[in-house]
Amino acid sequence: MASNTFGELFRLTTFGESHGPAVGGIIDGCPAGLAVDKQRIQYELNRRKPGQSRFTTPRKESDEIQLLSGVFEGHTTGTPIAFSIVNKNQNPKDYSHLKDTYRPSHADYTYEKKYGRRDYRGGGRSSARETIARVVGGVFGRLVLDRFNTVIQAYVSSIGDVSLDKSYNELDLSTVESNFVRCPDTPTAEKMMNHIDEVKEMGDTLGGVITCVIKNPPLALGEPVFDKFHADLAKAVMSINAVKGFEYGSGFSAAKMRGTQHNDRFYVEDDKLRTQTNYSGGIQGGITNGEDIYFNVAFKPIATLMQKQKSVSRDGTDVSIEGKGRHDVTVIPRAVPIVEAMSSLVLTDHLLRQKAHDLL
Amino acid sequence: MASNTFGELFRLTTFGESHGPAVGGIIDGCPAGLAVDKQRIQYELNRRKPGQSRFTTPRKESDEIQLLSGVFEGHTTGTPIAFSIVNKNQNPKDYSHLKDTYRPSHADYTYEKKYGRRDYRGGGRSSARETIARVVGGVFGRLVLDRFNTVIQAYVSSIGDVSLDKSYNELDLSTVESNFVRCPDTPTAEKMMNHIDEVKEMGDTLGGVITCVIKNPPLALGEPVFDKFHADLAKAVMSINAVKGFEYGSGFSAAKMRGTQHNDRFYVEDDKLRTQTNYSGGIQGGITNGEDIYFNVAFKPIATLMQKQKSVSRDGTDVSIEGKGRHDVTVIPRAVPIVEAMSSLVLTDHLLRQKAHDLL
Amino acid sequence: MASNTFGELFRLTTFGESHGPAVGGIIDGCPAGLAVDKQRIQYELNRRKPGQSRFTTPRKESDEIQLLSGVFEGHTTGTPIAFSIVNKNQNPKDYSHLKDTYRPSHADYTYEKKYGRRDYRGGGRSSARETIARVVGGVFGRLVLDRFNTVIQAYVSSIGDVSLDKSYNELDLSTVESNFVRCPDTPTAEKMMNHIDEVKEMGDTLGGVITCVIKNPPLALGEPVFDKFHADLAKAVMSINAVKGFEYGSGFSAAKMRGTQHNDRFYVEDDKLRTQTNYSGGIQGGITNGEDIYFNVAFKPIATLMQKQKSVSRDGTDVSIEGKGRHDVTVIPRAVPIVEAMSSLVLTDHLLRQKAHDLL
Amino acid sequence: MASNTFGELFRLTTFGESHGPAVGGIIDGCPAGLAVDKQRIQYELNRRKPGQSRFTTPRKESDEIQLLSGVFEGHTTGTPIAFSIVNKNQNPKDYSHLKDTYRPSHADYTYEKKYGRRDYRGGGRSSARETIARVVGGVFGRLVLDRFNTVIQAYVSSIGDVSLDKSYNELDLSTVESNFVRCPDTPTAEKMMNHIDEVKEMGDTLGGVITCVIKNPPLALGEPVFDKFHADLAKAVMSINAVKGFEYGSGFSAAKMRGTQHNDRFYVEDDKLRTQTNYSGGIQGGITNGEDIYFNVAFKPIATLMQKQKSVSRDGTDVSIEGKGRHDVTVIPRAVPIVEAMSSLVLTDHLLRQKAHDLL
Repeated sequence: MASNTFGELFRLTTFGESHGPAVGGIIDGCPAGLAVDKQRIQYELNRRKPGQSRFTTPRKESDEIQLLSGVFEGHTTGTPIAFSIVNKNQNPKDYSHLKDTYRPSHADYTYEKKYGRRDYRGGGRSSARETIARVVGGVFGRLVLDRFNTVIQAYVSSIGDVSLDKSYNELDLSTVESNFVRCPDTPTAEKMMNHIDEVKEMGDTLGGVITCVIKNPPLALGEPVFDKFHADLAKAVMSINAVKGFEYGSGFSAAKMRGTQHNDRFYVEDDKLRTQTNYSGGIQGGITNGEDIYFNVAFKPIATLMQKQKSVSRDGTDVSIEGKGRHDVTVIPRAVPIVEAMSSLVLTDHLLRQKAHDLL
Repeated sequence: MASNTFGELFRLTTFGESHGPAVGGIIDGCPAGLAVDKQRIQYELNRRKPGQSRFTTPRKESDEIQLLSGVFEGHTTGTPIAFSIVNKNQNPKDYSHLKDTYRPSHADYTYEKKYGRRDYRGGGRSSARETIARVVGGVFGRLVLDRFNTVIQAYVSSIGDVSLDKSYNELDLSTVESNFVRCPDTPTAEKMMNHIDEVKEMGDTLGGVITCVIKNPPLALGEPVFDKFHADLAKAVMSINAVKGFEYGSGFSAAKMRGTQHNDRFYVEDDKLRTQTNYSGGIQGGITNGEDIYFNVAFKPIATLMQKQKSVSRDGTDVSIEGKGRHDVTVIPRAVPIVEAMSSLVLTDHLLRQKAHDLL
Repeated sequence: MASNTFGELFRLTTFGESHGPAVGGIIDGCPAGLAVDKQRIQYELNRRKPGQSRFTTPRKESDEIQLLSGVFEGHTTGTPIAFSIVNKNQNPKDYSHLKDTYRPSHADYTYEKKYGRRDYRGGGRSSARETIARVVGGVFGRLVLDRFNTVIQAYVSSIGDVSLDKSYNELDLSTVESNFVRCPDTPTAEKMMNHIDEVKEMGDTLGGVITCVIKNPPLALGEPVFDKFHADLAKAVMSINAVKGFEYGSGFSAAKMRGTQHNDRFYVEDDKLRTQTNYSGGIQGGITNGEDIYFNVAFKPIATLMQKQKSVSRDGTDVSIEGKGRHDVTVIPRAVPIVEAMSSLVLTDHLLRQKAHDLL
Repeated sequence: MASNTFGELFRLTTFGESHGPAVGGIIDGCPAGLAVDKQRIQYELNRRKPGQSRFTTPRKESDEIQLLSGVFEGHTTGTPIAFSIVNKNQNPKDYSHLKDTYRPSHADYTYEKKYGRRDYRGGGRSSARETIARVVGGVFGRLVLDRFNTVIQAYVSSIGDVSLDKSYNELDLSTVESNFVRCPDTPTAEKMMNHIDEVKEMGDTLGGVITCVIKNPPLALGEPVFDKFHADLAKAVMSINAVKGFEYGSGFSAAKMRGTQHNDRFYVEDDKLRTQTNYSGGIQGGITNGEDIYFNVAFKPIATLMQKQKSVSRDGTDVSIEGKGRHDVTVIPRAVPIVEAMSSLVLTDHLLRQKAHDLL
């Protein structure tokens, strides 16, 4: 059956189609007593919102959250937190041309085969609008993580041909929000923006890579042998639309390294065990060791193009389609808060799981 | 809590430490009426067994399976299938030197922090010996997949510096078992073997990449928005020891492609919708579209070295450790059946999930 | 963690406090292609609504459902179905007297101990208003069950001292809705209504028993050894507020029977195996055998009384409390659709689970 | 799919047919650091063993447990604890007469309809032999509960026509093991034993009721709205073979009580909130309030009779069957440790769930 629930103990269940009445979700298992900061939720929703810059679609979506339950006198009560965001820009007529047509590299064909029918308006459930609920869930997770001083920060490390050639610890991550592409290195950010402008002219689209860093993660999170911390993290980010790859710590480059290079030697600092290098990416044997967790997420280019493409309709006829309205050249900058949100959900869920375990 | 169960409807729960009495598991939810082929189980167990070649450890492990339940008159009965493989080579004394020492880039330190204690003999639960149960589970999955003519085949596409520069459809995958490194290209296989020999001399170890191909997968598998087919696949293989990265279809290379290049154009063949290219890797919107599924899995080099390494003990003292007995230079060839097994579990579980869904 | 999700494959997640903005839920895993009948939902919501008669509270609650997702062009799409019912009668001031006081045999004290705080307005999450979402979920289940001609019908078989002394197959269950107490036997119904009137005068409250019958249930539902059909049914109805006991088939009377009396002898009717008696209640070994399923559910009397009661406040001081506004003497008649709804959820979930299983 | 796993965080997965190679299970999520007492496991296994007295079957089953994993140096390690008990008395020929016959009120017919085939030897998976694994799981739960001084004690409160007419707090529960029927009241126990003797002569069988008391339960266990403590308890005991009913606290008698009688008034004792009566059975709103938890479980009479019964075979032919070997007249005394075991699993699971929740 469809699975729209993420997490074991800190659980987010989401709902909503791009052009239905609303999108939203229910967070079940959120600890009681957390002060809810609605502005912080709105801030994160704005980060993922289209129309933030010249590089993203200018459709005005005012994603205003309504909290329906689980919060009383400004604090979480331990009961399920439901929330809803109304879909304001419903123009169902815009999408009638998609009713019988499958767009290339979209979910049109597979949804129809799976469910026998589909809401063809704007991608329906397969629309990235679904990620709104993830972002909200992530903020509630951060309320828990704040108590442990755990900080999650993602940024754009490549867009199309332009890549950032610095490691995360050579960068000032506090500058991520200082430019539209969310790249914490001004010269690279400039190149990325120029690259996007060029490609936009061509009616084409771009993919890219997001790097995410978790500083001061709690020790001992992760549940071998199947729910290793990085395995759950991989699933979490791979479930975001358009993601094609995940690597943590040394990642794919580990395949070319020798054991003598790759092993992270221990040392003692302030009575705490640390490692001199961190190819392990903060995770050993599937369990966090207290060092920084970092990982990369690869996104494919957007499938909707501002130029004619050939495709086929339900009855097998050749058709020609073209994106209507105005679409993004790339989703990468907007995906930054989504990657952070999914990381927040994984961290919080594993924190509660470890807490249950640590009984005695 | 520790999670040693994988899958929702076709569920494998595993147990066992490397030097405890046995390893094994329970498969719950296996459909009734499947003819059980014990030789096929043994064949797959032999594929992952150490001591298959000069490149792998010569410890003799005779991993003979005992079926304890769920099979009657040669067929599955729908009740849980328990199995056990006795650990014959128990030499606990070999491991006393590890009692108080944390090996670099192993799970020693994190297990101890998580559980307050650990079975230090041969890595205990974190040993790769745990994967035996995965391989057995995978064979039962294949019994189901056989009915759909779905075939899973993995192979080694790189070891250390030597990479195979051909795509899976340029290779004859039936030759994978023809050499010790499980690389279906003789010249590359030779280079890999020489590379391993060299590195063995140096007492060092190697990582690598495994590519896995699923031919003729059932259509419509995958459960958006969180249990997308590739998300569950990512989690499945990331949970294998030493895995650092996962990518499917175009993978990380998608980040550098344009939408015009990356979109897979539809066409009709024999009344069936197909795609001309397959950058999507057989999955669109998290649901299988019937095309081949293919993905890469990156492994780090083995952490146990046949040379002295510096580390620390529980009380923070500097110590020097060195692998005892004989250890592999690389696990990549032996990991091929494990990657296949995890793929089998994901496919079978999603097949049942889709079956439940397709009610009307 | 709090668990507000019911079901494995057909899953209902609920939210909402009695005096928060809304109550509602998400149904995940509902098969696609079902025609949604909003009037039927409203009909069931009206059945559980307060103010249906002189016996139930006259508070006007217009429980109007909003469908937020998962339905397109009048049919389910296979994606999550979210729904919300606004709480219109929010009078938070009415409840300030409960802020520091624990009502006897309510959840006030235990919620506060569990979560450290509570929404004291009208019972918050522990209010029976929560059951609205169960009723909605149950209707979607019935859309599936309709395809199998499975019919669920519950009725009131006792209220306080008045009991119906007929078995379900001596009654015309089509008359259940013909009186306010939902008892399909007019003389008994009259007695019940008089009994309620008497007890109302006294400011006291009544418990009772609901009997539920499932006609034409699908064969082979139930998942031994833990998820036996009746075990999941027991959990489902025991989770309804105020329920104290569950028995199916012969129930507690079986404890006094002999094997020779209790065994249901098989016979063949129209090439189908049937049983002459049905002490098994349609379930053998935890699996439905196709005969009628029937069970009884015992409810305690309402804890809120229209007379003074002694209790204690948070600081241990003795206090005196009395129900404000107008409250029911008994919930039994209104609980009939809730018992049916929970039965519907269990049946539908197990139907999908069996479908997944029946692969080959 | 078949579900042979019980619990969310403290999880028991069981396997085994009565005449297969072994029965056993895996406990996943058991906290690390518990001293394992094998004698205590054996003691509980002996309590459920057949052949304990003249009232139970004299088949000699030496149920000796083998621990396969998860225990190191006498303590749990936090990894899965697998265990196996070999089936020694395998006489498959004894059961050939059942191959094509469905016994009345057994699971023969329904298992065959569900799975398409069945292991007909001694009931296969539906045999009560399956409960061995529950008893083992329950002991591990008790190792956790010991830390909280929580004590579980069940006893037989009725067999056939003979009932104990005292409440649990009028009895000395330490005397439960002093007689074969596990009834802590000598005169009643004598009557029960005589009753059994009589019925045995007649080749007939008896049902009965078990009462279970949990003293000093942890406060605040239970997860509304669906996983209320008593709802999970109901499911747990209803999943035991032959159980037909469950009631807790006032149970079915609550249906006849008035609110003024039934409400449990609070008072303060040693700075702790207590209730003067305990009709709530230690649970309010689905959450434990610290008072004793008590409940009744009704069992049907054994379906296998030591006299001829009519039944039908697979092809619809009338057949006559009769129990072979020697069978129990009643399972009630032997079911006492099983009811305790299931209670232990529920308590421990909810303890861990509450622990996870109580984060801040």
